[in-house]
Amino acid sequence: MADQKKMVEEITSMEEDFAKWYTDICKKAELVEYTSVKGCMVIRPYGYAIWENIQKILDAKFKELGHENVCMPMFIPESLLQKEKDHVEGFAPEVAWVTHGGSEKLEERLCVRPTSETLFCEHYANIIQSHRDLPKLYNQWVSVVRWEKTTRPFLRSREFLWQEGHTIHATAEEAIAETEQMLNVYADFCEQNLQIPVVKGQKTESDKFAGAVSTYAIEALMHDGKALQAGTSHYFGDGFAKAFGIQYQSKENKLEYPHQTSWGMTTRLIGAIIMTHGDNNGLVLPPDVAPIQVVIIPVAQHKEGVLEKAEEIRSQLSSSYRVKLDDSDQSPGWKYSEYEMKGVPVRLEIGPRDIEAGQCVLVTRHNREKTVVSLDNLESAIAEKLAEVKAGIWEKAVENRKNRTYKCTTMDEIKQVLAEKGDGFVEAMWCGDEACEDKVKEETGVGSRCIPFAQEQISDKCVCCGKPAKCMVMWANAY
Amino acid sequence: MADQKKMVEEITSMEEDFAKWYTDICKKAELVEYTSVKGCMVIRPYGYAIWENIQKILDAKFKELGHENVCMPMFIPESLLQKEKDHVEGFAPEVAWVTHGGSEKLEERLCVRPTSETLFCEHYANIIQSHRDLPKLYNQWVSVVRWEKTTRPFLRSREFLWQEGHTIHATAEEAIAETEQMLNVYADFCEQNLQIPVVKGQKTESDKFAGAVSTYAIEALMHDGKALQAGTSHYFGDGFAKAFGIQYQSKENKLEYPHQTSWGMTTRLIGAIIMTHGDNNGLVLPPDVAPIQVVIIPVAQHKEGVLEKAEEIRSQLSSSYRVKLDDSDQSPGWKYSEYEMKGVPVRLEIGPRDIEAGQCVLVTRHNREKTVVSLDNLESAIAEKLAEVKAGIWEKAVENRKNRTYKCTTMDEIKQVLAEKGDGFVEAMWCGDEACEDKVKEETGVGSRCIPFAQEQISDKCVCCGKPAKCMVMWANAY
Repeated sequence: MADQKKMVEEITSMEEDFAKWYTDICKKAELVEYTSVKGCMVIRPYGYAIWENIQKILDAKFKELGHENVCMPMFIPESLLQKEKDHVEGFAPEVAWVTHGGSEKLEERLCVRPTSETLFCEHYANIIQSHRDLPKLYNQWVSVVRWEKTTRPFLRSREFLWQEGHTIHATAEEAIAETEQMLNVYADFCEQNLQIPVVKGQKTESDKFAGAVSTYAIEALMHDGKALQAGTSHYFGDGFAKAFGIQYQSKENKLEYPHQTSWGMTTRLIGAIIMTHGDNNGLVLPPDVAPIQVVIIPVAQHKEGVLEKAEEIRSQLSSSYRVKLDDSDQSPGWKYSEYEMKGVPVRLEIGPRDIEAGQCVLVTRHNREKTVVSLDNLESAIAEKLAEVKAGIWEKAVENRKNRTYKCTTMDEIKQVLAEKGDGFVEAMWCGDEACEDKVKEETGVGSRCIPFAQEQISDKCVCCGKPAKCMVMWANAY
Repeated sequence: MADQKKMVEEITSMEEDFAKWYTDICKKAELVEYTSVKGCMVIRPYGYAIWENIQKILDAKFKELGHENVCMPMFIPESLLQKEKDHVEGFAPEVAWVTHGGSEKLEERLCVRPTSETLFCEHYANIIQSHRDLPKLYNQWVSVVRWEKTTRPFLRSREFLWQEGHTIHATAEEAIAETEQMLNVYADFCEQNLQIPVVKGQKTESDKFAGAVSTYAIEALMHDGKALQAGTSHYFGDGFAKAFGIQYQSKENKLEYPHQTSWGMTTRLIGAIIMTHGDNNGLVLPPDVAPIQVVIIPVAQHKEGVLEKAEEIRSQLSSSYRVKLDDSDQSPGWKYSEYEMKGVPVRLEIGPRDIEAGQCVLVTRHNREKTVVSLDNLESAIAEKLAEVKAGIWEKAVENRKNRTYKCTTMDEIKQVLAEKGDGFVEAMWCGDEACEDKVKEETGVGSRCIPFAQEQISDKCVCCGKPAKCMVMWANAY
């Protein structure tokens, strides 16, 4: 127990300093390590394995829906980036520029892609001629670079991993349906696989993606009450098609501009997992993406038969679950702390007396509940426990969001509730005027996160100017 | 048949112009498309799906052997690249330099990784203290950039995809064993999964990787007689560890330098597949990595029941194979050509008379052999055909290599055989002197590819200077 205590003391408590607690987990759970490249990080094996599991689930969903993976160059010539006016204005200030190849100065600067709309458009212009060539449902898994000033592991780094879907369709209707479909894929993934409840909605004009007609997003609430945008999906109309000269011959033999979308999810999701489910003992991982779902800790492992039995169980379980047996020479107490820090959903303890009684102990990470189970029904017992973890962390996250969602009708109410209860989702009506959006941010600190699809008529007046309200907006401080 | 002929005529024959034949296939099989970024290409869905299949097989093998995936930054600060002298000399002339972030000039230039030894070393220096921390068996799947002057799809491009394994071990013996193990993994993959025969060997001093003690490689022979390096594995000794200050406390409590390796395979493999197995009708894909293993072409598909039956077969086969049913409105002849161009290993034709007789026709891509098979044993018939394709393309490749491997004892013999029979593997003895290596290249055009592990005493004199020979070298023109 001394060992265990020592480990736990090593991380700052979330109540004391949430930001420090977060970075402590990133380091102690061995998710990332800093590098001499400012703002860039190493994603270590344990962190990368979470990303691989995220990729696997999402990639299968994308393919099921007819998407194909491609790979575009990582460089964009300056002239190509400049083709769509809003787009270049949005991204040019934060790109990294390649100016030299070897010792030679390049004739034209290349930026390292911050996103790849322009490259996809150039490609579409090459390969699309007829309505028969549509739609193209493409995606790529790559890293992108944005020259951020202040950075934090997973949440904001100069290079990050993501997938970017880029699709092109004959009609606006099809493209809009795709934009909505992918937002739903993202929301379902967050809720069903990561147990992170999200709010689906549309971004206001001022918060749209550079070059988009409309941007949809899912917003999650972190444990400290700040919002985190977990995924976005953009509808571009035919703006990019016009800028890049992409046209197709319709069935009626007319030249038409196609309609486009893009959508993305990033390694930020790992930050969202940490800040939604983590606690003062470390990470708490959703079973679907946990690199280790069950860790087996032998007790009194030097005693005859213990390691053999533990290995037998490992082998038996490993056809259904991601299992690790830790037979290292550390104490069981040390190991308990270690895998709590790493957020392994279920711990299986087995010692000589358990073996004699034909049983073992299962401990669920999120609530440390212990259950003695028979070795005869182990696989189904594990399945139950994993389901319990999912239900448990989901409920906790939903509860946190409920406690931190505030309906307000005046600016003073917003200020008061934030002062009293701390950060959270503020639901308040808005007239649609950007000046009011800015003023709410300025006076109360919370910005508009989205216009939720699920609207509620909290009042009929704008929370800021008192004029007739157009919609309910969700406001929050955000990562 | 008119349609089919038209398609076939579209590509240059390999006898007429091998280089043009190659790029024709890259384009017509929809593997790649050029971009406005000089030397960089789009890997299109069909090409990328081949890479995904390659990744899947290799990644599973790596993990089976205890390797873990990580992700390093794509940038390397200039000062970090310079830490190992040989390494920087080898790579600095061909890197892309990032000099600006947004509108600000960076204090230190960053290069886009041409390879990541320096980043891994920096990380190892951070995380390795004790013998308990060793070995680390890491790998990453990323793209790298080398500023090549002349480029060709897959074979040489400024950005290419690869995996780079980087491992670090307590002893030289362990590291050397890893280097050899991974070369064997590569060789087995080429031979068993891609049906590309390879020669395993060691690179000469002049041809080693920048910073390596020894470099091992596998060399394949393309259809035109040129060699292609299909994979490399490097042993670094403790040179990088010393340059980067990586040390560990041994069991005996002494500070020691660990030993390192790295190994890589790239999207060049797709080029190797094209040039080993392709023919004048297009690509011929090894079944293990073919995005489509079986394409179903309905004949007289407007007739009642044909499409239904075709779909029934597709659904039945798709649990065991990667299957596509092409029910588009193109003619069967057009489709035959299209999927021959795309190298699909087995084509399944089914029309009204087949359905009546409870049969279908299977055509193997590599030899266009037709077999009528009963629909009752379709799955095992497909398995047989795929095995036939594997055996057939393997034999053809082995035969080509046999016909184009020349044993020579004098410089004149080398010149003569190359003039008479064209490019190929030249096996000839060497004294070990770099001057002779250079002279062979200068006078005959063929460079040393490797010192094969499987040695043969062709003569006891160096092919160049006539002094006592140290070993047999394999010489060739190379991609």
